[in-house]
Amino acid sequence: MSAPSITLTTDFGSSDYFVGALKGVIASILPEARIHDITHHVTPYDVFGGALTIASSYRYWPAGTIHVIVVDPGVGTARRPLLVSAGGQYFIAPDNGILSLVFDRETEVRAWHVTAEKYFVHPVSRTFHGRDVFAPSAAWLARSGQPESFGPEVTDYERFALPKPEISASTIHGVILRADHFGNLLTNLRPEDAPRLAAGARFHMKTGVGEINRMVTTFSEAAPGEPCLLVGSSGYFEIVTNRASAAAITGAAAGSPFVVEFS
Amino acid sequence: MSAPSITLTTDFGSSDYFVGALKGVIASILPEARIHDITHHVTPYDVFGGALTIASSYRYWPAGTIHVIVVDPGVGTARRPLLVSAGGQYFIAPDNGILSLVFDRETEVRAWHVTAEKYFVHPVSRTFHGRDVFAPSAAWLARSGQPESFGPEVTDYERFALPKPEISASTIHGVILRADHFGNLLTNLRPEDAPRLAAGARFHMKTGVGEINRMVTTFSEAAPGEPCLLVGSSGYFEIVTNRASAAAITGAAAGSPFVVEFS
Amino acid sequence: MSAPSITLTTDFGSSDYFVGALKGVIASILPEARIHDITHHVTPYDVFGGALTIASSYRYWPAGTIHVIVVDPGVGTARRPLLVSAGGQYFIAPDNGILSLVFDRETEVRAWHVTAEKYFVHPVSRTFHGRDVFAPSAAWLARSGQPESFGPEVTDYERFALPKPEISASTIHGVILRADHFGNLLTNLRPEDAPRLAAGARFHMKTGVGEINRMVTTFSEAAPGEPCLLVGSSGYFEIVTNRASAAAITGAAAGSPFVVEFS
Repeated sequence: MSAPSITLTTDFGSSDYFVGALKGVIASILPEARIHDITHHVTPYDVFGGALTIASSYRYWPAGTIHVIVVDPGVGTARRPLLVSAGGQYFIAPDNGILSLVFDRETEVRAWHVTAEKYFVHPVSRTFHGRDVFAPSAAWLARSGQPESFGPEVTDYERFALPKPEISASTIHGVILRADHFGNLLTNLRPEDAPRLAAGARFHMKTGVGEINRMVTTFSEAAPGEPCLLVGSSGYFEIVTNRASAAAITGAAAGSPFVVEFS
Repeated sequence: MSAPSITLTTDFGSSDYFVGALKGVIASILPEARIHDITHHVTPYDVFGGALTIASSYRYWPAGTIHVIVVDPGVGTARRPLLVSAGGQYFIAPDNGILSLVFDRETEVRAWHVTAEKYFVHPVSRTFHGRDVFAPSAAWLARSGQPESFGPEVTDYERFALPKPEISASTIHGVILRADHFGNLLTNLRPEDAPRLAAGARFHMKTGVGEINRMVTTFSEAAPGEPCLLVGSSGYFEIVTNRASAAAITGAAAGSPFVVEFS
Repeated sequence: MSAPSITLTTDFGSSDYFVGALKGVIASILPEARIHDITHHVTPYDVFGGALTIASSYRYWPAGTIHVIVVDPGVGTARRPLLVSAGGQYFIAPDNGILSLVFDRETEVRAWHVTAEKYFVHPVSRTFHGRDVFAPSAAWLARSGQPESFGPEVTDYERFALPKPEISASTIHGVILRADHFGNLLTNLRPEDAPRLAAGARFHMKTGVGEINRMVTTFSEAAPGEPCLLVGSSGYFEIVTNRASAAAITGAAAGSPFVVEFS
């Protein structure tokens, strides 16, 4: 049997030695590890953004995959390192809520407070637990497959909720969760939350300085410069446009409110 | 025998979940896949730039390598997903011309319209065929080695030509194809197109606000701030300078015209 | 036995075909190679920055790892390609000082001038030795484990020294070596150089427009907007702050002087 995949999701950027140290620690413990970069470009300290990224990608990985997620502004404080088993996969991350959206999606969740120092790189720094705690724990877990050996099971882990849209008969108030690399604006609204919208009712939507009046199913349907609404690949409505940035056109960004009115 | 390498060339950027989903889909179908990032930083929607990138890199890969190339502004429309066999390697990409320069270089080319939905991730989204069509097809091809099983063979695939330089006895008119990470300016002119230039004739070249009068063979020969001409590593003339950006010095960029005059 | 890991540290960026060519050359010679990106975002031509990156990361890799480091403004000139054995690992890089800090840390160092053209990709370009010399040499070394076969041993390789801090009883003068992705400012001062500072003496530090008066052990101890001093994960003092950029707050950058005064 081949070694499980180990994925990396961090806010480390790609210009420093940090990623190289993480990978080296893993390769030192498990030379045949299959290490895969998911991203090192979570916005620095953006636990919410990291939570969206891992929640949108983990489901495509095979059972047994180990995901290392390090967005860790509280490194060195009392916040716990966490090992989580959920949906047949493993997650190693600081206990700061970054796995909240994984917890939302999965019913079988177990979590352990990682305390077994024998698995750490010593001396353990106060500022780089990615290298000294999270990465080596992932590699040792890949070797042993025994999450129980890493520390006591816990149930009181940090967890935040996605902001819920406010939905009435005539209006929906929501918020932009994220602007992606193409400038598509991810909303906090799903088709199942808004069946009238999903069913094709006429609507008028505002966010930033942008006005959206049309639902499309592909980017190409949008006219040049026209922002449109679309059910995105991660299951939420997105504001998009054709070969351009909806974020730039509307001036909206993560945190911007939006309103939908039915006419 | 080890699994073939699967390379990724996209315009997805590295800050979202997209790349993680692609790799996860591949690892789920073929856990021992060797997945290699070529780049995720093709300029968004820049099919021409993606065509240059894959054409310049594929020849260095071993026979049997599978290249996944996703620059796909027409995702979800009638444009076809394509599987191409050329030069002993495979290419999986939208049928939008992005393989044009591979077609130019190779004599043995076969192409199939990828229609075998059994290989797709379901439900197939309208906006993320990288995840739902191209990546899983690559992984299944790596398992089977049977391109014929993916759909009907086609010959009417999209193909564009590189703009050709206009060459007379005394002048050459051409265009800058690309500015690279260092600011080197790739031209559409090859030494075999311009034997007089290649042979060392005196010349005067203009592009943007830059004037180039000297041919060099290494970056270090250029004086500080002096743009020079050089036969680049991909076989085309490039405008370069020493430890600085020729693009910044000349103000030229992709699409800028240039003229060479012989004195 | 599995193939050794091959790591890549370059200033190539991630938008061109360069990285894809490097990996393809390696995979062509050794299909089962484990190729790991450390970074392709060393600042272009910044040999000093590249030296810091590889020196901070290599120690975490297992014995036998082969590090390919290409920051090579002198490509094509008389500067030699170098193969170095140090600390049980291998380094393949231009002889331009980029391994200086590896030489500083290791006692058992041997170096060879890479001249064995049979290992190169032909024709060898004058401008892309990463592809034509360094990458294929790494792959062939991974296959053979015989560094002696690559060329004559040399001892007169390039080597520079880190700028040393000037330390008196009441003041320390030093320099910022680097600003990292988070804006943390790496100094050239280690705790063992400055035992009074390390022991907790009161101090006043200035760099750029920033004033630092407090030593912390975690980022979280800093007040909002307060730059603090901390022993960083690579063993040097760093100027940091809490969830923000110390570089932005102080205006300091690589090369900025700093002064510490004891009160």
